[in-house]
Amino acid sequence: MSTIVAISTPPGIGGIAVVRISGPDALAITGKVWRGRSLSDVASHSAHLGSIVDKNGDVIDRCIATVFRGPRSFTGEDTVEFSLHGSRWIQRKAVDALIEAGAVPAGPGEFTQRAFLNGRLDLAQAEAVSDVIASSSRAAHTLAMRQLDGSFSRKLEDLRQQIISLASLLELELDFSEEEVEFADRKQLQDLTDSTMALVTRLASSYSSGRAFKEGVPVVIAGAPNAGKSTLLNRMVDRDKAIVSDIPGTTRDVIEDTAEIGGILFRFLDTAGLRDTDDTVERIGIDKARNELRNAAIVLWLIDPTTPIHPQLERMAAETEYFPMGAVSSGEEGKARIDSNTTANLMILITKADKEAPNRAELLKALEAKYPGTTILNISATEGEGIDILKDTLARTATAGHNPDSELIITNARHHAALTSAGAALDRVKHALAESLPADLIAQDVREAIHHLGLVTGTITTPDLLTTIFTRFCIGK
Amino acid sequence: MSTIVAISTPPGIGGIAVVRISGPDALAITGKVWRGRSLSDVASHSAHLGSIVDKNGDVIDRCIATVFRGPRSFTGEDTVEFSLHGSRWIQRKAVDALIEAGAVPAGPGEFTQRAFLNGRLDLAQAEAVSDVIASSSRAAHTLAMRQLDGSFSRKLEDLRQQIISLASLLELELDFSEEEVEFADRKQLQDLTDSTMALVTRLASSYSSGRAFKEGVPVVIAGAPNAGKSTLLNRMVDRDKAIVSDIPGTTRDVIEDTAEIGGILFRFLDTAGLRDTDDTVERIGIDKARNELRNAAIVLWLIDPTTPIHPQLERMAAETEYFPMGAVSSGEEGKARIDSNTTANLMILITKADKEAPNRAELLKALEAKYPGTTILNISATEGEGIDILKDTLARTATAGHNPDSELIITNARHHAALTSAGAALDRVKHALAESLPADLIAQDVREAIHHLGLVTGTITTPDLLTTIFTRFCIGK
Repeated sequence: MSTIVAISTPPGIGGIAVVRISGPDALAITGKVWRGRSLSDVASHSAHLGSIVDKNGDVIDRCIATVFRGPRSFTGEDTVEFSLHGSRWIQRKAVDALIEAGAVPAGPGEFTQRAFLNGRLDLAQAEAVSDVIASSSRAAHTLAMRQLDGSFSRKLEDLRQQIISLASLLELELDFSEEEVEFADRKQLQDLTDSTMALVTRLASSYSSGRAFKEGVPVVIAGAPNAGKSTLLNRMVDRDKAIVSDIPGTTRDVIEDTAEIGGILFRFLDTAGLRDTDDTVERIGIDKARNELRNAAIVLWLIDPTTPIHPQLERMAAETEYFPMGAVSSGEEGKARIDSNTTANLMILITKADKEAPNRAELLKALEAKYPGTTILNISATEGEGIDILKDTLARTATAGHNPDSELIITNARHHAALTSAGAALDRVKHALAESLPADLIAQDVREAIHHLGLVTGTITTPDLLTTIFTRFCIGK
Repeated sequence: MSTIVAISTPPGIGGIAVVRISGPDALAITGKVWRGRSLSDVASHSAHLGSIVDKNGDVIDRCIATVFRGPRSFTGEDTVEFSLHGSRWIQRKAVDALIEAGAVPAGPGEFTQRAFLNGRLDLAQAEAVSDVIASSSRAAHTLAMRQLDGSFSRKLEDLRQQIISLASLLELELDFSEEEVEFADRKQLQDLTDSTMALVTRLASSYSSGRAFKEGVPVVIAGAPNAGKSTLLNRMVDRDKAIVSDIPGTTRDVIEDTAEIGGILFRFLDTAGLRDTDDTVERIGIDKARNELRNAAIVLWLIDPTTPIHPQLERMAAETEYFPMGAVSSGEEGKARIDSNTTANLMILITKADKEAPNRAELLKALEAKYPGTTILNISATEGEGIDILKDTLARTATAGHNPDSELIITNARHHAALTSAGAALDRVKHALAESLPADLIAQDVREAIHHLGLVTGTITTPDLLTTIFTRFCIGK
């Protein structure tokens, strides 16, 4: 096993930068570049002031080296972390000196991969390291931490053990198959399959929420020109992001900003007002707006009651016909659902609640008739009226009844694929049991379900799988 | 004294981020957010695995906390460094939790300022911390490290002690002034003043080189269109930075890139070829080129011997008349000088040495006649001919006879100003001595020289001075 080295802190200049070296020769290699107390016999988890020097003995930096002896380190190997002055020059030269002394540059995620290979983390935990680093909201962080601390893996392992017990019942029957005895109580098998499958299905279906928690929920703000879309964006993200003016057609580019609501990251996209126009740039903007509608998880459709409402209703009908949207129910938690794989969820906002609008009642009635069951809110982005309700509804829609604080939720496409495959195998088991097919046929599908669940935590791995997972990491982790 | 906290690693996402807390309550505040072995009684310089939690007890991160007990820490105070997973969310929340528990956000350079106030570093050393972090070449790094390790301060202190001994001789005379005795041997005073002043002057004059070492030397590549300027830039920075084509007028923007030559950072600027043109964009480019000539430390003027030479010579004569340039002598080390405060140094490169050019000899003769003493090199940027000589000459010109590896060199504008003031005071001393003015008049100027030198290492400081110095630092250092 080689000894690897990399800069582990974010790229760029800072007060401190950390260069990390890990592997069987970490201390021997460090010895060649270290001036100060010899680190080969110091205690694990101890920090020492000294100098790191290049091959000519010139001092690269005065720094702190912290020694972690394997297996009590992140990687499970001997590790030294150099806490350097954060200049690019020093960072580069320190890595160069350690490579000169025998280390090799670490590949992406190679420290974490070693932690996995040395049994310090299972595969789902190792993947969580990258998720923890990338997480940018409370919900994303909570899910990643739960995966990192192993509770996610333990629950999946429980599930896998259930299916293994299903398998062992079947295998027992197979051992005695010549005697044509049905050892396994088929009813018991059926119940176990049903309950396991329910769990697997629920987990797999949590993925669309999990992805929303992890990556942020795209919310497109659409509607007629001058309906107050940019004002709403600025209100939601709490700063002057988009230019606001009274002139219809002010926004042409798609303006994007994020805000954390209820612990969930939302990506708000302010778009050009939808209308027929001769302005070339505005027309490009409208095309972009339509493109964003296609990828939205939630669409906030703004109607301005202070301007003629019928053209707006006609425009909305035309556009929503073209991009079918699901209704965001105004009901209780759990009814609102998000599934960005299919259609966006529509919410209708009647804007300018702070202004006179004789048509308001008529508008509301027309909208309720045309979009039954869809949330319709009166808001004033300028005054803040209705914004809290809007935020609550957004958070509830995005969580889709899932609670990231208490629930097992899938955030990883690989896990989703594995669970979907396991679910399909269990579905075949269920049907086979219903049709009283022989145990050996059933056992094959049960083993397949076990295999797919094992892929998640890395009970089963292949070199290709590891490469695919760890090359997505940053270097230095 | 408050307890301060900040993110010390570069901003952004990385494998590891370090949050640092320092002050009398560092351990008590850490105790409120730390889950794991209590850190209040652990040894200094020891690292511990645990969790940092928010005020609700929710885990922000599993991380390593390293304890440094004052005065054996960078700041001289109790310090804890948290080595966290480098997500923005975790970094922000960890700082928030520590602030919630009683720490205050650190100002720019506040950790280093405390190191100064606690006597861990003198002022020049403290300033060097920021220079070390910013340094991006070997020379800049060497000078900053020498300032950080205190050898710069010791030399200045030696100088200051010399002037103090001058002062004490004078003060002695003053004590007995009523008796009109000249205790101080005026010849001895004169010699001491001369030698001290020579040192101060040499130091102050090293600043233009020091600044070149620290910030990089701007080198403008100028000349006729299609003379090979972009090819030369690409050769000097060793990559395809500028677009190269046979069409005159290819480069219009100023293309900039850096290269380290002989340990010194050079900033090469490729400019539009100078000619009369009707193309509006090209004309803007030519104006930009002339603007860069104004700020260059070194100008590489390219002449293409394969095209008519007289128009090129005329153009060059016209432009160099407009922007007077000093000659880069082709002589020995020490003759070449750089002083970016005055004129740029001119080097003439006859390009395309790999191509037939019957005019080459005539061209060289004309140039030697017109620019006597100026370095003229034959080069081929395509084939690499003459490039090594060019690099040597550049490095020698930039060092201007100063050697960053062995010599005391000023890199800091504040030090330069202080030394210049000290030099002016010593100059007045010198003249007063020559004119045999009374001791009390001379003593005043001597004290002023001592004062200015004391400002450099911080023997004398004012709160304003400290504020000015440390607000230029990044936060977290």
